[in-house]
Amino acid sequence: MRLSRLFVPTLREDPAEAEIASHRLLLRGGFVRQVMSGVYTILPFGLRTMRKIETIVREEMDAAGSIELRMPMILPADPWRATGRYDLYGETLFKLTDRHDRDLILGPTQEEVVALMAAADMPSYRDLPKNVYQVEWKYRDEFRPRFGLLRVREFLMKDAYSIDRDEDGMRESYRIMYEAYERIYARCGVDYVIVEADPGQIGGGVNHEFMARATVGEDLFVECEHGDYLADTEAARPMVPEPAGEGTEPLTEIHTPDTPTIEALATLLGVDASTTLKCVMFDVGGKTVAVLVPGDREVNVNKLEKLVFPEKVRPLDDDDFTTRGFAKGYVGPQGFDDSVTIFADLTVRGGRDWVTGSNQVDRHVTGANEGRDFRVDRWEDVVEFREGDRCPIDGGALRIGRSIVVGHIYQLGTKYSEPLGARFVDEDGSERPFMMGSYGIGFGRIMATTVEQRHDDAGMVWPKVLAPFEVVVVLATRDHEGAVAEAERIYVELRERAVDVVIDDREQSAGVKFADADLIGYPVQVVVGKRGVEAGTVDLKLRATGDKTQAPLADAASAVVDLLATAP
Amino acid sequence: MRLSRLFVPTLREDPAEAEIASHRLLLRGGFVRQVMSGVYTILPFGLRTMRKIETIVREEMDAAGSIELRMPMILPADPWRATGRYDLYGETLFKLTDRHDRDLILGPTQEEVVALMAAADMPSYRDLPKNVYQVEWKYRDEFRPRFGLLRVREFLMKDAYSIDRDEDGMRESYRIMYEAYERIYARCGVDYVIVEADPGQIGGGVNHEFMARATVGEDLFVECEHGDYLADTEAARPMVPEPAGEGTEPLTEIHTPDTPTIEALATLLGVDASTTLKCVMFDVGGKTVAVLVPGDREVNVNKLEKLVFPEKVRPLDDDDFTTRGFAKGYVGPQGFDDSVTIFADLTVRGGRDWVTGSNQVDRHVTGANEGRDFRVDRWEDVVEFREGDRCPIDGGALRIGRSIVVGHIYQLGTKYSEPLGARFVDEDGSERPFMMGSYGIGFGRIMATTVEQRHDDAGMVWPKVLAPFEVVVVLATRDHEGAVAEAERIYVELRERAVDVVIDDREQSAGVKFADADLIGYPVQVVVGKRGVEAGTVDLKLRATGDKTQAPLADAASAVVDLLATAP
Repeated sequence: MRLSRLFVPTLREDPAEAEIASHRLLLRGGFVRQVMSGVYTILPFGLRTMRKIETIVREEMDAAGSIELRMPMILPADPWRATGRYDLYGETLFKLTDRHDRDLILGPTQEEVVALMAAADMPSYRDLPKNVYQVEWKYRDEFRPRFGLLRVREFLMKDAYSIDRDEDGMRESYRIMYEAYERIYARCGVDYVIVEADPGQIGGGVNHEFMARATVGEDLFVECEHGDYLADTEAARPMVPEPAGEGTEPLTEIHTPDTPTIEALATLLGVDASTTLKCVMFDVGGKTVAVLVPGDREVNVNKLEKLVFPEKVRPLDDDDFTTRGFAKGYVGPQGFDDSVTIFADLTVRGGRDWVTGSNQVDRHVTGANEGRDFRVDRWEDVVEFREGDRCPIDGGALRIGRSIVVGHIYQLGTKYSEPLGARFVDEDGSERPFMMGSYGIGFGRIMATTVEQRHDDAGMVWPKVLAPFEVVVVLATRDHEGAVAEAERIYVELRERAVDVVIDDREQSAGVKFADADLIGYPVQVVVGKRGVEAGTVDLKLRATGDKTQAPLADAASAVVDLLATAP
Repeated sequence: MRLSRLFVPTLREDPAEAEIASHRLLLRGGFVRQVMSGVYTILPFGLRTMRKIETIVREEMDAAGSIELRMPMILPADPWRATGRYDLYGETLFKLTDRHDRDLILGPTQEEVVALMAAADMPSYRDLPKNVYQVEWKYRDEFRPRFGLLRVREFLMKDAYSIDRDEDGMRESYRIMYEAYERIYARCGVDYVIVEADPGQIGGGVNHEFMARATVGEDLFVECEHGDYLADTEAARPMVPEPAGEGTEPLTEIHTPDTPTIEALATLLGVDASTTLKCVMFDVGGKTVAVLVPGDREVNVNKLEKLVFPEKVRPLDDDDFTTRGFAKGYVGPQGFDDSVTIFADLTVRGGRDWVTGSNQVDRHVTGANEGRDFRVDRWEDVVEFREGDRCPIDGGALRIGRSIVVGHIYQLGTKYSEPLGARFVDEDGSERPFMMGSYGIGFGRIMATTVEQRHDDAGMVWPKVLAPFEVVVVLATRDHEGAVAEAERIYVELRERAVDVVIDDREQSAGVKFADADLIGYPVQVVVGKRGVEAGTVDLKLRATGDKTQAPLADAASAVVDLLATAP
């Protein structure tokens, strides 16, 4: 291809609206243009890179036995009402009515369509298992689109759906997709981790996020410094400390005026907050629950909710403290009767001789010990993760990683098939709901993530599998007949060798062409200029390292092929 | 590929909702499924055929120098308001508002996006000409979707846009696309005609429709029996008759009670309606216009509107007849003063001694002749086309053809760039609006049209370029080891020869497999059964002709390749 006949509008200046590198560079490199907030035109170079991602994804999905089809983007609202997602998604769902006043939506995912299709066209267990996928645009009305292609309202996604007879089948289909995803991200050259995650609005049980490391990422995860532990921040379970053993101090009441907070208490007593015991009070389905954590830690309400599901969790309010007879700010677990269930986080085992509330205003106790002074009904993991916690596997330091979620896979079970009445006839003649899974990959996010992970001050640094072109032949001067002829010859020779090559034959200065080649980030640059041609050489540059070499004019194509083989 | 691992839900019965062959067969063959009115899921076989169309279109667009990109499907409403299309499309446009109450639409075409993109990123005449295209889904809220994939609300289209400096450039870009379209339809094997057409809601000037012949088509065109003339029914200009010369009869008033219509008049007098002169009265921009046509013909108001554009045309109503003093049902052109402009269709030249109104109720005249008895201010082509009219080129009989429009190309001029202020700086430093063209091809329509043009009682008859697979190997029995082994061997050998082949290895009866092979319409069928294998042969069938032959087992793959070469 010839740049003179393409449409790659590079920009000399950084666009003011771009907050992060990928946004800035994809705009500057002429890969995308915004049409309105969170909605972009994908320009020819962006499209070439997206297509390369698409090809990798399609090859791996096909190899994994998934079958490609294509579902609509405008969908009837009723099935979404049946599954509850119409309300659950709320304003994130683009809603519209047609000319006959029927409610429609723009699909963010397609579980409902797939369940109904299975019900109609996979009537028997003999039709199962099936796995279908599509590559299609998706819609989410984000409140505040930002970060270029990272948080958008229209995005290209590969979404796959597995349809199985039973749970074992679903788990096997899930495993196959999990492994296909590993191959996809490896082939795309993405630096990523896999984390078990929260199901969110898709719902269901087991699910994993594929998180590409990125300093600008909004999605946090927890990892061990030694790389042997990964978790969602909501799900991280730090190592349980060694039990501290029996206490040695007597239980003693002390006067602590105006200390309803741990901070005030620790300051007054001149002790570390970690030596105090925090007793946080909740209403769980109408009953009182006390949760004990060390004074320097927080309760993770999400973990508590999972422990008591399906009961609802609510912190006690001021009225509750009054009517239930607890001294707010001075509550301790001593003397709670059976009407209070006492949860203690596992970290509480690591302490003894606690300072905690005395259940009277302006008074605390010291020397409180589990067993002797208070009981624990349930030892659980209910603490909020904190940087520096120890890894549950090898005790290494846990830290927060920032990432961009580039894929999410879900075991859905019958969450969609059941409310939609999507059933098949099993071998024994009984009707059963399909067991489903769903599997998504966002292409724009892979493109943007790759730029985040691979760029420098001069521009993007594409791995060759995703670069819009692998090689650029830069014709540095159009005024020198020999240079033009040699550049054309090398370009043609590279094409004959099936190299993915573009020639920069635009009427632009050499400086603009060099800057654009670095900005766009072709893995290999070949510069054909007057001086080189007169000396019988061309200049080669490997974008990833910046290393420059020279090759004899006659062997230029071979030298490019060799250099390309070394490119990441 | 193996049918056992695909998803091709064929149906034994005709779906009740299918009115035409393509709808019925695409449903029965498992190519598509309706999700809601006018909105379909494209199943794997439908997708394979659509992709083959897409590949042909992409190759020809690329070869013609068009550059692929991808524009959004949700679009801001404001540019559509600026060009007037927001109102013009009316209810056909899917409209929605986002969570911040901004008006959006689902794009039916993308002229506005392209014009604004050109304004932003093609600032100079040096950036021109450009031609960009995309393959993307489009939206039209049809009042009554029907005929399967022919009238739908969501459809896949290749839409291209040319952007030029001036009218010569636009015409050249248009010519290049016109020729690319000819190659595309020829390669797809579509039987089509090209007709200059009405610009409709896209607007602009010269435009052509590519019309695939189909008995079920809703789009009519006019063609000469000798094939040398084609026209849109609105634009057809029949041959002008030889002038009849001067009249011979005197102008005579006759009593014709209760004859306000041509029919009543002709019956009363016992003459042919073609010997009477109809005088149809219009208001054109506040002035009175009389249009004369032979009594057996109708005025084509569309033609009249084009003749008097930008004035508005309106037939006179009863009040107008009263206030302007015309005797409704008895109007004749004799004695009209300058306040009435008299148009006569060219066919009026072919008659003389007309029977026409006398301008008094219940009275007509005979022997009315142009020149002597009435004047004509403008001779024009304003008559409605009628089957049997003569061809303007060779006088052959004109007839109505039925078709499905599978492509439409437009010279837009500055219709979009002007209202959107989309301008570039020309060589002389002046700012000029872009001259644009737009070019659309509907893929679903090509798929459905091909089925309409190529099917029989047993099913579809795909040309090999568009078939979901070119060859099916039908394993007639799974109980015979030799047959299974031979079918697998032939399948593998065909794959090695790069034949686009599928093996029907499903657990189904031979009868079902034969019926499905005919229904789906693979160009070549290879049947491997017990009897044949024991006799050392396979059965081959060419779907297009139904011809059956046998080939030795050992040479089966070669025989298939040879037979496929003869398939349409």
